[in-house]
Amino acid sequence: MADKIEPRILQGLVELLPKDQIIFNRMHDTIRRVYESFGFLPLDTPVMELSEVLLAKAGGETEKQIYRFKKGDNDISLRFDLTVPLARYVAQHQNDLAFPFKRYQIAKSYRGERPQHGRFREFYQCDIDVIGADSLDLIYDAEMPAIIYNVFKELDICKFTVKINSRKILGGFFDFLSLYEKTTDIIRTIDKLDKIGMDAVLCELEKIGTNGKTDDIIRFLTIDGTHDEVIAKLRELGCENDMFREGVNELEQVIGYMRDFGIPDDYFKPDLTIARGLDYYTGTVYETTLDDYPSLGSVCSGGRYDNLTGYYTDQKLPGIGVSIGLTRLFSQLKEAGLIGDDGRGSIIDVLVIPMDRSVMANALDTAKAFRAAGIPTDVYYQEKGMKPKMKYANRIGVPYVAIIGDEEAKAGKVMLRPMISDGEQCAVTVEEAVKMIKR
Amino acid sequence: MADKIEPRILQGLVELLPKDQIIFNRMHDTIRRVYESFGFLPLDTPVMELSEVLLAKAGGETEKQIYRFKKGDNDISLRFDLTVPLARYVAQHQNDLAFPFKRYQIAKSYRGERPQHGRFREFYQCDIDVIGADSLDLIYDAEMPAIIYNVFKELDICKFTVKINSRKILGGFFDFLSLYEKTTDIIRTIDKLDKIGMDAVLCELEKIGTNGKTDDIIRFLTIDGTHDEVIAKLRELGCENDMFREGVNELEQVIGYMRDFGIPDDYFKPDLTIARGLDYYTGTVYETTLDDYPSLGSVCSGGRYDNLTGYYTDQKLPGIGVSIGLTRLFSQLKEAGLIGDDGRGSIIDVLVIPMDRSVMANALDTAKAFRAAGIPTDVYYQEKGMKPKMKYANRIGVPYVAIIGDEEAKAGKVMLRPMISDGEQCAVTVEEAVKMIKR
Repeated sequence: MADKIEPRILQGLVELLPKDQIIFNRMHDTIRRVYESFGFLPLDTPVMELSEVLLAKAGGETEKQIYRFKKGDNDISLRFDLTVPLARYVAQHQNDLAFPFKRYQIAKSYRGERPQHGRFREFYQCDIDVIGADSLDLIYDAEMPAIIYNVFKELDICKFTVKINSRKILGGFFDFLSLYEKTTDIIRTIDKLDKIGMDAVLCELEKIGTNGKTDDIIRFLTIDGTHDEVIAKLRELGCENDMFREGVNELEQVIGYMRDFGIPDDYFKPDLTIARGLDYYTGTVYETTLDDYPSLGSVCSGGRYDNLTGYYTDQKLPGIGVSIGLTRLFSQLKEAGLIGDDGRGSIIDVLVIPMDRSVMANALDTAKAFRAAGIPTDVYYQEKGMKPKMKYANRIGVPYVAIIGDEEAKAGKVMLRPMISDGEQCAVTVEEAVKMIKR
Repeated sequence: MADKIEPRILQGLVELLPKDQIIFNRMHDTIRRVYESFGFLPLDTPVMELSEVLLAKAGGETEKQIYRFKKGDNDISLRFDLTVPLARYVAQHQNDLAFPFKRYQIAKSYRGERPQHGRFREFYQCDIDVIGADSLDLIYDAEMPAIIYNVFKELDICKFTVKINSRKILGGFFDFLSLYEKTTDIIRTIDKLDKIGMDAVLCELEKIGTNGKTDDIIRFLTIDGTHDEVIAKLRELGCENDMFREGVNELEQVIGYMRDFGIPDDYFKPDLTIARGLDYYTGTVYETTLDDYPSLGSVCSGGRYDNLTGYYTDQKLPGIGVSIGLTRLFSQLKEAGLIGDDGRGSIIDVLVIPMDRSVMANALDTAKAFRAAGIPTDVYYQEKGMKPKMKYANRIGVPYVAIIGDEEAKAGKVMLRPMISDGEQCAVTVEEAVKMIKR
């Protein structure tokens, strides 16, 4: 053992065992299917980008976390999100793309975070964005939550709520209070509401300096009611500001479109405390929370931006997008016990077990017939006794085994045994077995 | 424009436009589906590995190509293939895995190659491997080509041939000629036969020194005939060597199993010139060539290895695997004109076009009904005239558009227009449209 190297990976990375990986992939596939069903095109940009291009905009905390290195003459960085590569791609290929350009990318990004709970150095993001040439209709602000609604309905975790707000409402309101130049600081503070609570937010607001307008801010932030009541109450604030009015009008229209998209009213909610930390948002913003697990925070966020590609091109390319942090979501659901070994962690539906080598050709034919019927199938090939064979079947969590001995081979049948569901084993033809397995 | 950064990527990386990406993804999905249908479990190891662990075995040319860097206290390397991470994973998690452990991984690897034709710095590999605890049945040597057969049948590029050989036959034969210590050099030379031709191979063999056995080597390498004739001719060589005899017996059995798996004889071929350059192969080896495009070289290769995990564990874990270099294959097929704009490059099957805003709710309902019927659907939301709307539909290559004006909305119909296939547009109900689009 002396000169063996201990097999291990870098801290802060996720590597799943097969059963979890299967469940992870099913979530991945569901998200992809919904994204594609709405016409989003697949993109697959490189993990490595030229640092000069990728970091055009970055700075501060983000830049410190970048995996950056030189190889030959090249200064290379691993992407830290999928948004900047999208901006680069659209600017680079704009003449080859049809606008509005709808794309999804489900891929890994990299951040050199300190290893800590819930923070990963390599993580999947599932992004969709729509980029318009010159303009992008407001209806896309409603399509985004419609897609979130469909994704989380199909993921079927639990009841969820898409919270919606507008940067224009926030900006306009603080402008009206003569706090416009402090909007970013105030928004960053409001963004922490979920984490630190209202008292701490008020305390931080006082530090930022609110010109004695803290009461107005509270009254604004705590506006509540039905969707239409919230709009009405916003109008009753008497906030004489064009950007504010535009934001309220847009929010009202977006709510109308969301209903047209078929999102039930109890699955979304205008929430004036939603701000999103990132500074490139300029209009509608979203967060999505799981009603039964509010402590998980937002599981799908995003918003509208006017000018993401400004570092690369003069062409005006406004866009809107949302992102699901799948690695984080999966790890949270796993921790909350919502993902576990529920017997769905097998890649195959049936394991064919030949009693011995003499019936191997029958086993291979049977497996071929199962696969032709669309049933993923494996065969246990190793020469072992029945006990280790059944132990293997139990271990991989396969729903059915199809045992073939001399008798079954002669009769053209298999002994089909359910491994997870109740029920007795029985000798059936392959056609009958296909029906039973598919049921 | 002065301070704009030119949007671009590192040389030697592949980044596709959406239509090509859709075709690439379809190939990816086909390979994944076949791999899963044979019971291979998904793995997703990190792109970043600890250098000490990843490079336990590496050296020479490979090590020079590694993207390696430091971040904090960590010495990190990007993986250069999926095989070493598999060895690390199996050694690390062996107590949590059921053996034989079948896994697939379809993912990117990284090599800092000089940019040149057909060489990529970031590339997809589609790997399957089976790892046994202590032993692994010979039937897996036939399952590998059975999977290759199914994958390339479904990819439907053209007729192909899986060429099969055994390292034991090669090693045993050269041992018999008292050239055993030169086996690796001779094998490396034989491996170049396709690229440099027989004369150059003979010339190199003379340089290596063949003790005047060149004629024997030629006679051996040029053995040809039906599968069974090749086995017979090998036995007639009079090669008195145990490893050789074991190799011939195994090859004969593997050919028998391959027939049991249903691979037609004309889709595989024993070929004594197949060697594979990598030094970890110890038994059966494979290469796959496209009959109509031999110049593409092998599109799927692999073999059996006894001891891949030896750097990490004392447990004996023999395995077998093959790999498809998808990025390279795709780029070659594209260059050969086998992948093009054949009208299948749309992610959606129908684009719903509302004539104006007044029928938007109808358009959204129609799109919802199409999606519920399993038809990926987009809606053109931008307020533009019919001309730019139809131009967009043409540009994305969508097979159908469903136009909705006042008249259609009132009649509960859509005007369905085929965009690629022949046929007139006609006013139909959504149910009728679903049937026509699915046909």
